[in-house]
Amino acid sequence: MKQAHSGAARGRGERALLDEIRQRAAGASRAGLRLGIGDDCALLAPRRGEELAVTTDLSIAGRHFRLDWHQPEAVGHRALARGLSDLAAMGARPVAAFLSLGLPRELTVATGRRPAWVERFLDGLLALAKLHNTPLAGGDLAESPLAVADIVLVGAVPRGRAMLRSGAKAGELLYVTGALGGAAAGLARLAELAEAQHGRANPPRIPKKLAAQLAPHLYPQPRIAQGLWLRRRGLATAALDLSDGLSTDLGHLCTESGVSAEVDAARLPLHPAATQAQALHGGEDYELLFTASATARVPCSIAGVKITRIGRIVKLRRGQPAVTLLTPQGPQPLAPHGWEHFS
Amino acid sequence: MKQAHSGAARGRGERALLDEIRQRAAGASRAGLRLGIGDDCALLAPRRGEELAVTTDLSIAGRHFRLDWHQPEAVGHRALARGLSDLAAMGARPVAAFLSLGLPRELTVATGRRPAWVERFLDGLLALAKLHNTPLAGGDLAESPLAVADIVLVGAVPRGRAMLRSGAKAGELLYVTGALGGAAAGLARLAELAEAQHGRANPPRIPKKLAAQLAPHLYPQPRIAQGLWLRRRGLATAALDLSDGLSTDLGHLCTESGVSAEVDAARLPLHPAATQAQALHGGEDYELLFTASATARVPCSIAGVKITRIGRIVKLRRGQPAVTLLTPQGPQPLAPHGWEHFS
Repeated sequence: MKQAHSGAARGRGERALLDEIRQRAAGASRAGLRLGIGDDCALLAPRRGEELAVTTDLSIAGRHFRLDWHQPEAVGHRALARGLSDLAAMGARPVAAFLSLGLPRELTVATGRRPAWVERFLDGLLALAKLHNTPLAGGDLAESPLAVADIVLVGAVPRGRAMLRSGAKAGELLYVTGALGGAAAGLARLAELAEAQHGRANPPRIPKKLAAQLAPHLYPQPRIAQGLWLRRRGLATAALDLSDGLSTDLGHLCTESGVSAEVDAARLPLHPAATQAQALHGGEDYELLFTASATARVPCSIAGVKITRIGRIVKLRRGQPAVTLLTPQGPQPLAPHGWEHFS
Repeated sequence: MKQAHSGAARGRGERALLDEIRQRAAGASRAGLRLGIGDDCALLAPRRGEELAVTTDLSIAGRHFRLDWHQPEAVGHRALARGLSDLAAMGARPVAAFLSLGLPRELTVATGRRPAWVERFLDGLLALAKLHNTPLAGGDLAESPLAVADIVLVGAVPRGRAMLRSGAKAGELLYVTGALGGAAAGLARLAELAEAQHGRANPPRIPKKLAAQLAPHLYPQPRIAQGLWLRRRGLATAALDLSDGLSTDLGHLCTESGVSAEVDAARLPLHPAATQAQALHGGEDYELLFTASATARVPCSIAGVKITRIGRIVKLRRGQPAVTLLTPQGPQPLAPHGWEHFS
């Protein structure tokens, strides 16, 4: 993290914040990180024969999160989870994260004995970073009327071995990690809680009995271990992460691979709290969707997470929807219809 | 650039914009870029023995630029120039750029025969990217009430050879590329032009005779060639780029190196339109500041840009200002006092 540029919040608050981020980031694992926060750039040293995977994800207040709905720890967790999930989808190991953060001044100031919003945001972000041995290596900091956080993840993967969206072929089978629809169901529950408190500015306290139900939305777990396992075994012919919802993301996989797909409705691993529509169209589950040869021996679980076969890849059917849902009432076109926040 | 996540602008406009960015980016040089826009991550392949330099720079409307002051081409150019300048300061060659863009819907829509703001922003960004053989390899896109652009630059440098802020030693001499204060002087002139048109929403047209005077502010040239030259010759013991202004940035160099510095006021290479205060404190010149041994043979110009010796590094003087300005009236402490936009 460089000294913030012109236009950023200046004075003691900003310097103190920069110093604190630098100090907190310095404690993390630094394998592959030659130089972290404090110079013009960070320096990353990939191992011999590796290439670098890079992804950026923008989180904007009122779009990707709401200050009156989401605890700051969850905002930090979710911002990083999105980027880690992109690395998982390529089968890359995380090397470093970068954070560009624009914040209203009041979010950087402690109120009474309550730590500043930004401190709690960093708590959530750095806890997940630690879990995945991902040092915060740099970024930028600016004062902004709107809270925005752009997360950049850099990962490494042996050259030519990354799992791409473009490798699926007709005849292959379609798999998904974990359960689907939990994030959408959790968001719906969070919206009810928030509305019940009638426009208070602070996010609702989550009753203990609801924590598990809201976790898929508030604290999604990127499938890094599962992505690494699949890539090392060479099992997946194509992969991506479910950020926009199965109907939308499977459409991307089909487009990039030049194929069509069939999904068996009866096989969908619904989250216990989720409807079928949430499992099909609800975004932000951050599970992995992948394809494998019909003869591949795909296990029932990888690193403790269930793997479910949900369908198959078929030849491209021009002029027809890329994805078909097989139901007891017969096949139905499954048009992309990803979840929209707060709509 | 992935498909935009939930919460982004949806529908034809967004898909069309993503497709257009992908198409425009595909035309660029792709050395070192194994996989660009369209998958979960981009894949970069550094050469053997190289490490990667990574930097992010946030540009926020009303902070780093103004929609009613700056032509969109200049906003795009300046956003990329900030990142390229960080690579220049390390002596890194650019490998790829990433763009996370949050925009109000109206900035993505053409009005009559006028192309959309975002098209012209990309014109400016991609023209500078082409000049420096830097492909746009990915990013993110979202609808946002406030225009924000986070630029990520990835560069490559032979392992252990990057120019750092921390290498300066007492007795070394202090150099700067180009001229100082031109960006601050240009911004002041732009503010006059904008104010003369009394609150119109569109940025002022720049009269031809003023184009050269405003160029250091609107179209700063990152010193990539000079940074590469210095790094290859091993001449610079420390380096950074002047983004916050000489008084602030030289302070950073002193802090990171554990030294103090003296600047000869009479030697400062003032831009013809700039005052001494603008040269000392005006930010965004994006010139390189570097140190070299007193016995090093530093040329008068590198790749067509003038090099000026402006002072020297001295032992750390605890309890005193890190930087001293030597003037005809005697030495004066030079406190950090970087430029603030629009203040």
